[in-house]
Amino acid sequence: MAIVLKQSQPDFEAAFSAFLATKREVSEDVDRAAAEIIQRVRADGDAALIEYSRRFDRIDLATHGIAISPAEIDAAVASAPAVTVEALTLARDRIHSHHARQLPKDDRYTDELGVELGSRWTAVESVGLYVPGGTASYPSSVLMNAVPAKVAGVERVVMVVPSPDGKLNPLVLVAARLAGVSEIYRVGGAQAIAALAYGTETIAPVVKIVGPGNAYVAAAKRRVFGTVGIDMIAGPSEVLILADKENDPEWIAADLLAQAEHDSAAQSILITDDAAFGEAVTAAVERQLLALPRRETASASWRDFGAVILVDDLEASLPLVNRIAAEHLEIATAEPEKLLAGVRNAGAIFVGRHTPEVIGDYVGGSNHVLPTARSARFSSGLSVLDYMKRTSILKLGADQLRVLGPAAIELARAEGLDAHGRSVAIRLNL
Amino acid sequence: MAIVLKQSQPDFEAAFSAFLATKREVSEDVDRAAAEIIQRVRADGDAALIEYSRRFDRIDLATHGIAISPAEIDAAVASAPAVTVEALTLARDRIHSHHARQLPKDDRYTDELGVELGSRWTAVESVGLYVPGGTASYPSSVLMNAVPAKVAGVERVVMVVPSPDGKLNPLVLVAARLAGVSEIYRVGGAQAIAALAYGTETIAPVVKIVGPGNAYVAAAKRRVFGTVGIDMIAGPSEVLILADKENDPEWIAADLLAQAEHDSAAQSILITDDAAFGEAVTAAVERQLLALPRRETASASWRDFGAVILVDDLEASLPLVNRIAAEHLEIATAEPEKLLAGVRNAGAIFVGRHTPEVIGDYVGGSNHVLPTARSARFSSGLSVLDYMKRTSILKLGADQLRVLGPAAIELARAEGLDAHGRSVAIRLNL
Repeated sequence: MAIVLKQSQPDFEAAFSAFLATKREVSEDVDRAAAEIIQRVRADGDAALIEYSRRFDRIDLATHGIAISPAEIDAAVASAPAVTVEALTLARDRIHSHHARQLPKDDRYTDELGVELGSRWTAVESVGLYVPGGTASYPSSVLMNAVPAKVAGVERVVMVVPSPDGKLNPLVLVAARLAGVSEIYRVGGAQAIAALAYGTETIAPVVKIVGPGNAYVAAAKRRVFGTVGIDMIAGPSEVLILADKENDPEWIAADLLAQAEHDSAAQSILITDDAAFGEAVTAAVERQLLALPRRETASASWRDFGAVILVDDLEASLPLVNRIAAEHLEIATAEPEKLLAGVRNAGAIFVGRHTPEVIGDYVGGSNHVLPTARSARFSSGLSVLDYMKRTSILKLGADQLRVLGPAAIELARAEGLDAHGRSVAIRLNL
Repeated sequence: MAIVLKQSQPDFEAAFSAFLATKREVSEDVDRAAAEIIQRVRADGDAALIEYSRRFDRIDLATHGIAISPAEIDAAVASAPAVTVEALTLARDRIHSHHARQLPKDDRYTDELGVELGSRWTAVESVGLYVPGGTASYPSSVLMNAVPAKVAGVERVVMVVPSPDGKLNPLVLVAARLAGVSEIYRVGGAQAIAALAYGTETIAPVVKIVGPGNAYVAAAKRRVFGTVGIDMIAGPSEVLILADKENDPEWIAADLLAQAEHDSAAQSILITDDAAFGEAVTAAVERQLLALPRRETASASWRDFGAVILVDDLEASLPLVNRIAAEHLEIATAEPEKLLAGVRNAGAIFVGRHTPEVIGDYVGGSNHVLPTARSARFSSGLSVLDYMKRTSILKLGADQLRVLGPAAIELARAEGLDAHGRSVAIRLNL
């Protein structure tokens, strides 16, 4: 049973603050192991990948090959049900259209002094995409990570995915083909991250690494950061639903459980202004849980991290919403746009009664890689900008240098940087 | 004496790769100390700040106060030379105009199915700006970090700056006033980062922390990342100059030294297609070094990390330029725009013979916080976007859900996420 907090209770602020501070991640001491694996891959290249895959994935890459061949991908595509390929293609196309709108515009202009300034955007040259093995090997995540890279103009999109006991979800290969992934390798764990960052005989290094993974993958990403770029380190998923009593409690319960089934550390929160509605949703959650294949995971998540927050009115709950800064926020009310305008911190917002968050996971078009654990206060979901970088451009002629130079010389003097001042002064014969 | 590499030499590729791999940062084991300091500040708040400042900065904040008062800032402004205040004001205004052009536009649209999608940008609520003490306490860096935050719309811009032995560069207070900084505290080191991340009785916590600092500050920033956002971890500064023989060797030498005087780990590189010009620049560097107040630092930098790379022609050197991915790139040639078009990886580019990099440090208008250590391959200089985040918006009606729902249900089925499928199916009576 989830926790219930009432805004009217005298100790609400303390209880809400404690709720916000709850840690949902198990901290594991995997950093040293990741460091050692990286060191071995840097030293021994492919041989280290083969040895670690034998040990951790129980597969012999010396015979299966590190690279996944085009023929294997062809076979995966041929064996996939047509309806699944169609759904993936629809998702791919919608992700592509939405992300194409995110392409930044270069800006080059001349100011009133005649100084030319500019910002120029270029794509990262190569990207490595980590895809987990086992049950978390999601084709939708391949699309969400790879399609924006292709939209940005990244030439080389390299995918790594482990195949424990030789098993590999063929749909991730289908998604990779649909997304335009250029190369796929059958490796996972910290060793795959090391190979992407430093390269081996078979895998050329990339410039940036993205994609979710277990604690070893996350530790390895943190370690190689600097040598390559990395995306955010994703935590367990979460949903916050703002709902009035006019909703069908079964719908809202279904949405809370869609989040809870991801992971026992996932979090589902309902904010409502109606106690009876809150109770109806809670009862519906308990009922629906019984029918779920993943009920063990979902009930652990709901029991340990679920919450129902009763507020006096939904409008006044916006400060709480912004403090929670949820990865996913559903606004299921009669006039959702009014509340929408007051939300500042959220990864993605799903507006109205007919927009379950799950649409955003698959076919909405927006990205499902979103900031977790309150980081929507300072960061954004994955976008085309994550695969691009901006270069500043500055151009002065002799006239402009004469106008701006003296101020630069004065500031260099004030900062005690004489050589800075000299590099301007020498051009002005000062 | 800097290293000289010739593209024509048979082992050039190996020598260039080794040069690229040179580490310029001293790795210090400061992480444990930073962790302990953070823990103490979380536990003891102001008392810990007072104790650490007594120990590390030899100042008693119990009597001086943790906060710097408006009267102190008034006094700093009153005592600053008018010419310096004018130069800072010019810099502030130019930074403001340039960064105002970076403000992103919201995008809300309806696609051909009637699905509403959107991206909405909002400012981070509060930012902490770290300013180092001592000789690296630069007013220009205060402007470069704080002005874009104000342009973004950040309400609370909090500055921390240590005052070792009670000394504080009054110009950083002047710059803070000009930039619109809201609060200033007299603390530094890992303890200041901890205070910004977790708050104390005097200092309310912020959402994101930016600004350069020593190894302890960097370690503390890495540790609080997640609780708050952080900017990039800046390494030693660097310049790459592409120059033909028509340049005055003295000008180019002055630019190389402006970079070298920053830090003994700074790096200055010249690429030229003319051996005699390269030698003339090297001779000018040695000559100019003698007259520099910071010659010890600059000569160590030039000796240990400086380089002259002789190429067959400048156009063909672009692949090297892109592999170096310099923080600062000067293009000092007759037709710089031609080379400019071929540069993909650089933090900022200074175009033509009259644009010394130093102009960008102070009064160009673009930001001087730029990616170092080859990270321009995957990251960008500081901009307004670093103080904002983007929220995705998705809105379907019942009709749109009927169209898109089945594909989402199919993908949920393919991924084994039954509760995901249910949350859509329940709304479609499936």
